[in-house]
Amino acid sequence: MKKADVLIVGGSAAGLVAGITARRHYPDASITLIRREKQVLIPCAIPYLFGTIGSTSKNLISDAVLSQNGIDLIIDEVTSIDREAKTLTTKGGETIGYEKLILGTGSLPIILPLPGVDLDNVFVAKKDVQYLDNMLETMGQVKDVVVIGGGFIGLEFADEFRKKGLNVTVVELLPHCLFLVFDEEICTRAEEELDKLGIKVMTNSKAKAILGNGKAERVQLDSGEELKADAVLIGVGVRPNTDLAQKAGLKIGERRGIWVDRYMRTSDENIFAAGDCAEKTDFFTGKPSALRLASIAAAEARIAGANLFTLKRENKGAVGVFSTKIGDLYMGMAGMREKTAREAGFDIAVGTVETVDKHPGSMPGATSLRVKLVFHRDSGRLLGGQACGGVSVGELANVIAALIQGGMTADQVATFQMGTHPALTASPIVYPLANAAEIALKEM
Amino acid sequence: MKKADVLIVGGSAAGLVAGITARRHYPDASITLIRREKQVLIPCAIPYLFGTIGSTSKNLISDAVLSQNGIDLIIDEVTSIDREAKTLTTKGGETIGYEKLILGTGSLPIILPLPGVDLDNVFVAKKDVQYLDNMLETMGQVKDVVVIGGGFIGLEFADEFRKKGLNVTVVELLPHCLFLVFDEEICTRAEEELDKLGIKVMTNSKAKAILGNGKAERVQLDSGEELKADAVLIGVGVRPNTDLAQKAGLKIGERRGIWVDRYMRTSDENIFAAGDCAEKTDFFTGKPSALRLASIAAAEARIAGANLFTLKRENKGAVGVFSTKIGDLYMGMAGMREKTAREAGFDIAVGTVETVDKHPGSMPGATSLRVKLVFHRDSGRLLGGQACGGVSVGELANVIAALIQGGMTADQVATFQMGTHPALTASPIVYPLANAAEIALKEM
Repeated sequence: MKKADVLIVGGSAAGLVAGITARRHYPDASITLIRREKQVLIPCAIPYLFGTIGSTSKNLISDAVLSQNGIDLIIDEVTSIDREAKTLTTKGGETIGYEKLILGTGSLPIILPLPGVDLDNVFVAKKDVQYLDNMLETMGQVKDVVVIGGGFIGLEFADEFRKKGLNVTVVELLPHCLFLVFDEEICTRAEEELDKLGIKVMTNSKAKAILGNGKAERVQLDSGEELKADAVLIGVGVRPNTDLAQKAGLKIGERRGIWVDRYMRTSDENIFAAGDCAEKTDFFTGKPSALRLASIAAAEARIAGANLFTLKRENKGAVGVFSTKIGDLYMGMAGMREKTAREAGFDIAVGTVETVDKHPGSMPGATSLRVKLVFHRDSGRLLGGQACGGVSVGELANVIAALIQGGMTADQVATFQMGTHPALTASPIVYPLANAAEIALKEM
Repeated sequence: MKKADVLIVGGSAAGLVAGITARRHYPDASITLIRREKQVLIPCAIPYLFGTIGSTSKNLISDAVLSQNGIDLIIDEVTSIDREAKTLTTKGGETIGYEKLILGTGSLPIILPLPGVDLDNVFVAKKDVQYLDNMLETMGQVKDVVVIGGGFIGLEFADEFRKKGLNVTVVELLPHCLFLVFDEEICTRAEEELDKLGIKVMTNSKAKAILGNGKAERVQLDSGEELKADAVLIGVGVRPNTDLAQKAGLKIGERRGIWVDRYMRTSDENIFAAGDCAEKTDFFTGKPSALRLASIAAAEARIAGANLFTLKRENKGAVGVFSTKIGDLYMGMAGMREKTAREAGFDIAVGTVETVDKHPGSMPGATSLRVKLVFHRDSGRLLGGQACGGVSVGELANVIAALIQGGMTADQVATFQMGTHPALTASPIVYPLANAAEIALKEM
């Protein structure tokens, strides 16, 4: 029987980072990673296959990182865990022993229970090379596409389909696109940008059925309206993949992830979980959280991998930090936004500023930059921020994330010492984080 | 006699931000700002006049911000302060009373005491519209230019002159360009980029004299070598402008700035100072610091302006955060680098990573990104970081700055929750800040 000190199930962000981290912290441990996929896709870039990258072969995570870290790779499907014997069994008929097991089984795209969902040319964002190769081929042959779901994933696909010259309609249940992530004013900006790009957005709209003869032809809405659809992409989120954990009797959390403690241990202390499959606790409220992000998966894996044989790191809870782009509009956010902070019961103060991302505004490529920060009035602490502007918004969201995780107050953000440069950032005089904090302070 | 509750001397970053901050914190105070210049230039963008912006008129700070904040503007030169009477006198013959005075008198470019420094066509980075208009005209008529000083300012000018088609040679005293700011490996990258751009760099070289008949013709080096020079730019730093403060008997610090306490008060508690004219204390060591940056000036002004009538904010000491670009190479840093940390006596651990700033690397525009972090081994705290890569390096330096100012340790940086996106940032699996922290931890 094969045996590894550390056995990892899953080869995407969580599994891979857990393996690398385990190697760093336990140089002498034998580490084996077992995964189903022959090749692993970079998950966040899947939408970008369609209008930018062009081929799955250009979006793979190289296995070299495994061998460089002395991690053995087995390609097989795990069918069960025997927690008492501390072994796994696989579809290929192997039994593998472990000292410590890490589950990084990820998530699966939610497939809406719509009539017609099984028709050909109906797709989800599946992390599977062959599936996506087939989808790429199909998308090269169609004209009208309906995207169900106007969140991040849906809009990223929509924009990529648009780049290929397809007619794209986005159907969104909520009053706005991106409404689970941004406050209304940024959602509206995104919708204006979509409109400019020729992407049709139908908000407050529910898909009722996908119609067609063998393959998708139309999407029928609750209103009765029918949209032409040679292909359909359903992008309405993911659900934790916990089948294996459930079968093994591990505790499942309220949000349907594998329950873990602050050290990323499941209800079995020899089994850790990290990434989309693991239950999350909100950084601000301590409540179960629905966040599922590759960046959180990586952070959790850096905790789990370090804690295998000695508890070294504590998980302080998940902070949502997102960024994306639609057309030429870049958007980012970190932590809570105004709406969620109020709903969670925080008494908050808000500061919003609008400036440009270079200085003076006459610098070539200068783009309008809007930043909104939300502070807890009682403690003064930064709860979150949103930004939209040019490409620097990605790291600007990370500045906000760092200020949140450092526990900074409005006064500290107002006097934060940042670096500025005409070609790289806003002016120090109007640096948006400091100024938004000053504005919020007037309400505090 | 005119009188203001708050009187500010100086209209650049420190004076302006102090005024706006005073208005926010003391809504009923009368505020007057007095400055010498009719028009105020954005200081950091002065080099960019020459190859990018093209005209001083496109690089001005609008006075609208003063009137919008109810700040009276007087254009005149302050000649003396009567601290007992709490009045100023001006060249224009006015006497103005104050309750609280803020000095934001800035700095002056250092003019090397070289023979020939008074010749025509020898320039410094003077914050003066007419001077720069004249310099712009001259630079349009010359061919060979020598830049004395290979720091930030010198290289930014050199790159801009190069964009206008001039033959540029940089003369640097130290073994590398940018050697006061970056560790050697990034300096070397910058030098490679300069070489690619056709800018000649002479390190370990000292200018001895500027030769010419009425106007600059050649620069003579210590080695005896002579360089053709139709114009010369001296960019070797600035000195605090403390003449007025000294005349008024205010205490001057070791680094020749106006001495201030943690609340930005000078030795006279009714007089505050902020920006380049004020003495700085290093964030890490508490020692006097030679840092002079517009971003620090703005942060200090946000402290001074808030503290005028009640002490609200404390200055924790200056953190250097810089960014710049040369050609297509963007560079940024925050806090201490390896060399300065070791020289200051810290036992440190260093982590360096090299990745790309988008993911996968096949995303268009993906640029190599190098990050180096320095941690204090005993406390685990982040002391500094350096990055070079694409445009996002500006805000990435600010992420590092936020992590430093939040007091984060290597473990916290390793598990920092950042946002990532294919078109905006590095991959979460190899996010350089987390990975550099992990690498440094192996030494801790």
